[in-house]
Amino acid sequence: MSRLLAVDWGSSRLRAALLDDEGRVLDRRSAQSGMLNVQQSGFGEVFESQFGDWMDVPGTRCLMAGMVGSRQGWVEAEYVACPAGIEDFVGHLRRVAPDASRSGRDIAIVPGASCIVDDIPDVLRGEEVKMLGVLDLLGVESAVVLSPGTHSKWMTVENGRLARFATAMTGEVYGLLRRESILARSMPAQTEDALDGPVFDDAVRRALRSCSLLQTAFSVRTRALFGELPPASLASALSGLVIGEELRCRHIEEGQAVALVGAPALTERYARALRLCGAEVRTFGEEAVWRGLWAIDRKRARRKGGGA
Amino acid sequence: MSRLLAVDWGSSRLRAALLDDEGRVLDRRSAQSGMLNVQQSGFGEVFESQFGDWMDVPGTRCLMAGMVGSRQGWVEAEYVACPAGIEDFVGHLRRVAPDASRSGRDIAIVPGASCIVDDIPDVLRGEEVKMLGVLDLLGVESAVVLSPGTHSKWMTVENGRLARFATAMTGEVYGLLRRESILARSMPAQTEDALDGPVFDDAVRRALRSCSLLQTAFSVRTRALFGELPPASLASALSGLVIGEELRCRHIEEGQAVALVGAPALTERYARALRLCGAEVRTFGEEAVWRGLWAIDRKRARRKGGGA
Repeated sequence: MSRLLAVDWGSSRLRAALLDDEGRVLDRRSAQSGMLNVQQSGFGEVFESQFGDWMDVPGTRCLMAGMVGSRQGWVEAEYVACPAGIEDFVGHLRRVAPDASRSGRDIAIVPGASCIVDDIPDVLRGEEVKMLGVLDLLGVESAVVLSPGTHSKWMTVENGRLARFATAMTGEVYGLLRRESILARSMPAQTEDALDGPVFDDAVRRALRSCSLLQTAFSVRTRALFGELPPASLASALSGLVIGEELRCRHIEEGQAVALVGAPALTERYARALRLCGAEVRTFGEEAVWRGLWAIDRKRARRKGGGA
Repeated sequence: MSRLLAVDWGSSRLRAALLDDEGRVLDRRSAQSGMLNVQQSGFGEVFESQFGDWMDVPGTRCLMAGMVGSRQGWVEAEYVACPAGIEDFVGHLRRVAPDASRSGRDIAIVPGASCIVDDIPDVLRGEEVKMLGVLDLLGVESAVVLSPGTHSKWMTVENGRLARFATAMTGEVYGLLRRESILARSMPAQTEDALDGPVFDDAVRRALRSCSLLQTAFSVRTRALFGELPPASLASALSGLVIGEELRCRHIEEGQAVALVGAPALTERYARALRLCGAEVRTFGEEAVWRGLWAIDRKRARRKGGGA
């Protein structure tokens, strides 16, 4: 039997799937043991408690992606420079040494990627696997892949290689404005905001024809002040302004294909906004992560097999 | 004797100057009794404790500007709609009723201003006085007046009237990113950041040719990560990116005059950035506030005298 334990170990969560030979999900587990909640010396322990039983079955390998490979993670897997294809990620897999876990475990961490645009370095970690998964699922060699979130990553793939990418601090800026700014004073103090579709769409359109979020954001307060928007819709207005700002700078053309990969609550909003820009959207969830890790595992197996 | 007590009562501070007939400053006082630290019922008390002795001198009037005139302030002075000239602010002065303070006190609050741009309402309160002061000090009828801060106000004055204005949440966004975001993790935990001029200038230039702060801000982290900037200079880089973003959207032309009014620590940075855009900058401090209130007082006196 040959099985792959695919793990996405990020800052705040740990998610994993056990895959069979064909990449089909046999079982899944997740935990709140994100990187920020684990002592640097405790990764092996958490790993064993979460996955020891799965790894004890002979023929089970493990590939991990995400912040677990950062300097503050379990073992640092250095960034691969763009342009980078699947062979580069396979070539720089970082083996977790036996003494850091149980001897004999076959565990490796996928490196992140770096690129330089306009003399400024940028980095990502974890999104490279989503990108590889999307390519595999779509069966394409070129794509624009967007992984929205705290830090959105826009990945441009050409001829099967990650050519370049850009980071937008959209989710983090949204969260700060939503919870910590003067705008929060007009909004209900709840953590999950229901989407007011028309208000969101209108805000996206405004952002698309505006110049900067610095200029548009205050409208959330003034429109509340003048009774133009009910308190419960203000977060949707802000969300539309922030996501619209991100999309404005991507200069999306009518019919441009964008592969969107992330959690449903977020991809729903991005898909909506992207379609307002005229984009053709395909949406993927965590299956892209499992597929990306599975693709890396297959490529590694072929390499070991003599490059045939 | 005729004296004007000019008061700028904002959210976090109370500043005042006692002016003579010619608008010269006789004395000054300031306190931390900002609006956010005063109970709504306690404004009269704070006023008496701060200024009772000055107001007891016969012939002393008081004009106040700032958040003291907001709904949460002492007495609400409603917004005057743009275009608005000094006569509109004089015409809508809100007298503080005798029972709210000692009987016989002559105290009034200057209204704020509102405008509508692209169907979106905007408001300011306190900056109208700075604008009037700058016009008086410069002896001009038309100007672009910028009051930078938590919320920057760009005021366009035409023929002596505030034609329109726009709010940029620059200071607030900077503060959130500086203190609360992932960028803060790379920076020293100090409250006053020394300005690294060259790093600031470079960041302003980058912002001027960029599309959005959402895209540029992450560079502060990556440049720290790759050792391109020392930790002590990162706040200057962020400051330049944020201020440059604000200026980019003003489309400043070579030689355009901008009157800058605010605290020295902030106007220094804005003057520097504005000059990089080719603007001709004149800078004013709190003297613009006193002058603006004095100009309103003079105009009111002439009106009372029969409009001569």
